[in-house]
Amino acid sequence: MTQVGWIGLGAMGRPMAARLLDGGHRVVGYDVDPAAVAALGDGAEAAASPAEAAAGCDVLAVMVATGAQADDVLFGNRGAAPELRPGAVVLIMATVGPAVVQAIAARLAEQGVHLVDAPVSGGVARATTGELLMMVSGPEEAVAAVAPLLDAMSSRAPVVGAAPGDGQKVKLVNQLLCGVHIAAAAEGLAYAEALGLDAEACWEVIRHGAAASFMLDDRGSRMVHGAGEQVKSALDIFVKDMGLVLAAARENVYPAPLASVAEQLYLTGRRAGLGPADDSNLIEVLRGKR
Amino acid sequence: MTQVGWIGLGAMGRPMAARLLDGGHRVVGYDVDPAAVAALGDGAEAAASPAEAAAGCDVLAVMVATGAQADDVLFGNRGAAPELRPGAVVLIMATVGPAVVQAIAARLAEQGVHLVDAPVSGGVARATTGELLMMVSGPEEAVAAVAPLLDAMSSRAPVVGAAPGDGQKVKLVNQLLCGVHIAAAAEGLAYAEALGLDAEACWEVIRHGAAASFMLDDRGSRMVHGAGEQVKSALDIFVKDMGLVLAAARENVYPAPLASVAEQLYLTGRRAGLGPADDSNLIEVLRGKR
Repeated sequence: MTQVGWIGLGAMGRPMAARLLDGGHRVVGYDVDPAAVAALGDGAEAAASPAEAAAGCDVLAVMVATGAQADDVLFGNRGAAPELRPGAVVLIMATVGPAVVQAIAARLAEQGVHLVDAPVSGGVARATTGELLMMVSGPEEAVAAVAPLLDAMSSRAPVVGAAPGDGQKVKLVNQLLCGVHIAAAAEGLAYAEALGLDAEACWEVIRHGAAASFMLDDRGSRMVHGAGEQVKSALDIFVKDMGLVLAAARENVYPAPLASVAEQLYLTGRRAGLGPADDSNLIEVLRGKR
Repeated sequence: MTQVGWIGLGAMGRPMAARLLDGGHRVVGYDVDPAAVAALGDGAEAAASPAEAAAGCDVLAVMVATGAQADDVLFGNRGAAPELRPGAVVLIMATVGPAVVQAIAARLAEQGVHLVDAPVSGGVARATTGELLMMVSGPEEAVAAVAPLLDAMSSRAPVVGAAPGDGQKVKLVNQLLCGVHIAAAAEGLAYAEALGLDAEACWEVIRHGAAASFMLDDRGSRMVHGAGEQVKSALDIFVKDMGLVLAAARENVYPAPLASVAEQLYLTGRRAGLGPADDSNLIEVLRGKR
């Protein structure tokens, strides 16, 4: 049994923390929204601050939305870092980009605390079943310490590097492809409509051939059938993630022309009020309807 | 048994015509390169011109490279059209775009000849095994007349519309996605390298998740392992096809920003001398090496 301080119990964090409770671990949870902690149920203990969640923990799990939030819950007012004992491990599973993670790792190292970087892919559905893909990096000993937790949350948790930030880098490659593939599905299906085709019939013909992608299948289905009110993954997530993809590209003097165009489409969607909507609604931008 | 005049016996046309011979059909073949006809083997008959290939045929199969060539073999010097009897069917399987096919169909209709539009996807490998995907459109009776031929060449030949050109339109949607997905794979894997990751290890981690595409698997493999001298599909094919995609987009006043950027990348690759090379070499453009 590991004692886990858990910070960030949103749509992804809650089902992930629930997997740890089911696995017999002790979870002390904190979220800016106290209702989110209560929603975790009987097994969890509630903390009133990041510091309280961190007190006495073996592992501090961080599943907030942004790099600024990750920094704040560790080093801000009533932050977790001062409570962490030497040898404790901070497990960052949010997608915040390599630069933030590297900076946090350096600061935690000063107090003898290790960082494991393990951003996830798979959405709420796989978070709930404990079948996420986690892209793990960090010092060998620290990775070993969190391995039982990763096992409970993921179906695959490959170690992609020894340096904190390597996991974030692999996640950004993943998000570059995902973000471009969603936009390509939207562009391709709206193109079919513009040519006068029945987009759904066209989609059925091509989706299992050389044009196939996970996103053409998954988001394409909601694009041609309509997403209705359901939000499986908000468009705002790709506004954030394409920003991280391009920031890291810029920092490494790498031109990423497709990702750059895809970012403009997500930003256009957000400007049109689609940020909280399912990201399959990006097709409205390509249709010229938003 | 159908008597087939076959025009265009290149890398794709030859194995496709061979499927018809194996299926017991009579094939009279013509190609600008007489050696290509000879290579078809004993069962085939050689014609010295498109007109000779067309004489007495039930179906004239056209598998040339461009729309200009399709027009020329039908209506140019010693062209096939004057030899076609009323009720004959011209079967265009080359990817030439909807505009050319619609124009040819209108001209053939004046002499009572039908056109079936059936561009293919699957490459030489599937052409050889008779497992192509064919996107078929045309008048019902004409489609029925060519059905035994389509059966011999394809594993799937969905009828996507009644108007000649509808098949080409679906193929262009397919090519938009394929062309963007190849470029996205190149951009994503070169991005991984730019971030200091091992691109092959990164590819292995992400290729079966949400980032998955047929092209990330197929071309991605040759991008990270190297294509060597093999040319499974020449980069020049996407120079041509992205041009057709964007011509049809323009004609329908549809902005296709991702396809547009992808076209620029293929054109850059061609400028760098990569036109005849395997299209997985597009990653060299993103690496900044070409």
